[in-house]
Amino acid sequence: MHKTVAIQGIKGSFHHIVSQQYFKNEVDVIECLSFQDTVSALLNEQADVIVMAIENSIAGSIIPNYALIDANNLQVVGEYYLDVQHHLMALPNQSIPDIMEVHSHPMALLQCAVFFKDYPHIKLVEAKDTADVAKHIQVNKSIGIAAIASDLAAETFSLNILNRSIQTIKHNETRFVIVQRYSVEINKESINKASIKFELEHKRGSLATVLNVLSDCKLNVTKIQSLPIIETPWKYAFFVDVTFAEYKDFEKANTILELMTTHIKVLGAYKNAKK
Amino acid sequence: MHKTVAIQGIKGSFHHIVSQQYFKNEVDVIECLSFQDTVSALLNEQADVIVMAIENSIAGSIIPNYALIDANNLQVVGEYYLDVQHHLMALPNQSIPDIMEVHSHPMALLQCAVFFKDYPHIKLVEAKDTADVAKHIQVNKSIGIAAIASDLAAETFSLNILNRSIQTIKHNETRFVIVQRYSVEINKESINKASIKFELEHKRGSLATVLNVLSDCKLNVTKIQSLPIIETPWKYAFFVDVTFAEYKDFEKANTILELMTTHIKVLGAYKNAKK
Repeated sequence: MHKTVAIQGIKGSFHHIVSQQYFKNEVDVIECLSFQDTVSALLNEQADVIVMAIENSIAGSIIPNYALIDANNLQVVGEYYLDVQHHLMALPNQSIPDIMEVHSHPMALLQCAVFFKDYPHIKLVEAKDTADVAKHIQVNKSIGIAAIASDLAAETFSLNILNRSIQTIKHNETRFVIVQRYSVEINKESINKASIKFELEHKRGSLATVLNVLSDCKLNVTKIQSLPIIETPWKYAFFVDVTFAEYKDFEKANTILELMTTHIKVLGAYKNAKK
Repeated sequence: MHKTVAIQGIKGSFHHIVSQQYFKNEVDVIECLSFQDTVSALLNEQADVIVMAIENSIAGSIIPNYALIDANNLQVVGEYYLDVQHHLMALPNQSIPDIMEVHSHPMALLQCAVFFKDYPHIKLVEAKDTADVAKHIQVNKSIGIAAIASDLAAETFSLNILNRSIQTIKHNETRFVIVQRYSVEINKESINKASIKFELEHKRGSLATVLNVLSDCKLNVTKIQSLPIIETPWKYAFFVDVTFAEYKDFEKANTILELMTTHIKVLGAYKNAKK
């Protein structure tokens, strides 16, 4: 059965690529203008799931997306890592000296900034979505304007790739999560990773104590991120990802953390996508 | 003696406000187009210091700025917290129904998204800098366009504030750091906070062990953020801020961490700006 997936951006975007790869091509896509809109599409049952970028190696965590998952009580049911390769593309029969402007998402421009130092005649212009620029160039037959986007975008909008993989860090991994409306069903057998959020009183050693418990319960921390809770200056929230061999070890840690933290919430338990 | 401060953005921006407040108005400002440009201005000695946003309560850490400080071996010598208030402003004699477009920085638009749900006729347009939009409205006498910016921007560019503090979270704190070229001089007496970066082998309990040491040395962790090191998938980097009563406690922890971590670096030691 085809899933309907809400993505930020349009077909040809990196979110679209992940949707295809994670669900083995069996997807219908709802194109949304913002991450907030993907959540609305999920909550009003237009979409079955969201594919949502959550962190990358350059910008770190996308905290507003954690906040969306948390505030709307959504459930993370999977993850996917995409090696994001940024290609420079334009209408056919143009070469780099013909290009006067490159439009792309601020993150893509940032990741490719070093490449453009060699081309000072090119003006960098921020845009909403990498694939959307590719579409605009095709629709408007824009001469002299290039996009930074994916192979899929070049293919979808019949653009010619002028330069492949122009990002500075060649292995440029972005992590996406697969998000559903909250459901109690969990297939414990295949699950070996979880995302949790907890809050602690701000006192010396409180975080070390929690991490000792995780370690004692045989959980590995693969990601940790503190976030001050502005309304309550003496408390801190933490987003933590853990991996484990046995689901019961995670359940045990969870039971202990319920006693040790002022608040704990499991954002999701799912299959680790890393070897 | 006046300091010359490099800031991202123009006069009237939040970086300008912080420069004035931190240095008690005794500053000359160099307006830069990007954070990278502020670093260039510092390294070529046009600027004495940079004032740089580093984290806020909504978006979390600005990891690319950590990377700039780290990669250029700069030194954090101070911090400042600003309660960022976003005001809606336009040329005089207009009211909200006259406004067709609001231009601002993506972060400001995100923080004010809920406010604009009540005004569906207003189109939100991303721009580079909050104050720069205010300047453009004044220079071009743009009717029907509003900016989201600071009191200082409204004052600097003679705009009329239509609505004050339109961001969703009313207490909206952003942390800035004061950054210099590396220097060995440190006034240990007034120092009670430090920012460090360290790397660990990815094995169970390694982070807990480090945090136990920090706690044993009487250091409080006020912020922690993991970042995968893409080139070496089995190592993790951590950015950690700690506070302490005695500088010698920090030195002791540092000495131990040099033995326990594969790499440790002090990004700066400075005076805690929080009570």
